[in-house]
Amino acid sequence: MTEKKKTTIVLFSGDYDKAMAAYIIANGAAAYDHEVTIFHTFWGLNALRRDENIKVKKGFMEKVFGKMMPRGADKMGLSKMNFAGFGPKMIKDIMKKHNAMPLPQLIELAQEQDVKLVACTMTMDLLGLKEEELIESIEYAGVAAYLADAEIGNVNLFI
Amino acid sequence: MTEKKKTTIVLFSGDYDKAMAAYIIANGAAAYDHEVTIFHTFWGLNALRRDENIKVKKGFMEKVFGKMMPRGADKMGLSKMNFAGFGPKMIKDIMKKHNAMPLPQLIELAQEQDVKLVACTMTMDLLGLKEEELIESIEYAGVAAYLADAEIGNVNLFI
Amino acid sequence: MTEKKKTTIVLFSGDYDKAMAAYIIANGAAAYDHEVTIFHTFWGLNALRRDENIKVKKGFMEKVFGKMMPRGADKMGLSKMNFAGFGPKMIKDIMKKHNAMPLPQLIELAQEQDVKLVACTMTMDLLGLKEEELIESIEYAGVAAYLADAEIGNVNLFI
Repeated sequence: MTEKKKTTIVLFSGDYDKAMAAYIIANGAAAYDHEVTIFHTFWGLNALRRDENIKVKKGFMEKVFGKMMPRGADKMGLSKMNFAGFGPKMIKDIMKKHNAMPLPQLIELAQEQDVKLVACTMTMDLLGLKEEELIESIEYAGVAAYLADAEIGNVNLFI
Repeated sequence: MTEKKKTTIVLFSGDYDKAMAAYIIANGAAAYDHEVTIFHTFWGLNALRRDENIKVKKGFMEKVFGKMMPRGADKMGLSKMNFAGFGPKMIKDIMKKHNAMPLPQLIELAQEQDVKLVACTMTMDLLGLKEEELIESIEYAGVAAYLADAEIGNVNLFI
Repeated sequence: MTEKKKTTIVLFSGDYDKAMAAYIIANGAAAYDHEVTIFHTFWGLNALRRDENIKVKKGFMEKVFGKMMPRGADKMGLSKMNFAGFGPKMIKDIMKKHNAMPLPQLIELAQEQDVKLVACTMTMDLLGLKEEELIESIEYAGVAAYLADAEIGNVNLFI
């Protein structure tokens, strides 16, 4: 009858390394039987984008944002030592060498472990991102749903 | 007789988008009847600066910081895609189009909802910011007061 | 018989100012009798590097990372207004003037107050950092140990 522990992460950042940290903590918590939610907001939504170009109707500004933001987890930059895109390649090479999971696989693992992946509908609206542009099997919600999870949580992080 | 839930946010960042996220979560939590505190420290203090130039006596280094840091919420940059100041304009245009509240109004709303806005006195001292330079109806405190709030909190975030 | 409060901080950032914030909160919490852990991961590990060049065997990529990452707390840059290294000097001058503790002393104080400093073994492996390169009296652990601390914590922060 003991209740499950709960971990709730806001992923605000669009950096590859920060998203990795979020997903490593989330996967760890799920492995230790926590109920885990990652609420993707602002640039964090980019981790959920499909890598192909999906045709959807958008206004001009939304198109500009759509073009300029990375399309999917694999294309995100580093928060430090990005070196115009050379940094992520270095990190990915070194991760491969050490058999560490790259971000897209960490996201797949999270989905297999029933980590709840939520896309913030308010930011989707602002940045002009449509459901068709995001990966499958995720939920859509706003700040109220985030707070309902977070307020009964054990581990709350903003990344 | 149930106790109020408590949300306590450290706003360290001086980025427009991160401050927006902090204030959106804070306003949401206040709407759900949480007791909410935002503790503004380091660059997060810039969100509380008045936009006019207030004459106060300062040493040289404090003047340099004062000149170089953004004067108030409306002048802060973005954490991503700032594009030398073009990014914030894009975000603000797109927010206007979507009827989303800009940061200065989010701060006003927070004050109307009794969100406690605290300025970190230690950083004010370091950066040479004076009370006259900050907006009205805020509190002044240090890390001890923050911890007293945070240790009994349900949602603690560092943004 | 009341249990100690618990503060657990993930220090992901390699910025001088963010590390300062982490250590100020940690030292405050320790002074208020919390059990405090700082879990250093990714760039946050740089705060624990010794400042001398330690000879250890490394692969090429690990050498590159080792060269390019700051060697110890005193060499870290600022998250804002770094100005090619001039910012940290300004902050340090101003801190000296105000008798504020620089980061290396904040770390020493934390150790004196029994703050548990943990180096994330997974990132050490990735970035090629060896135990000999890090300061003394720290612990080595992974995400499971972090979660064990965090899930029973009062204040959890990701910095």
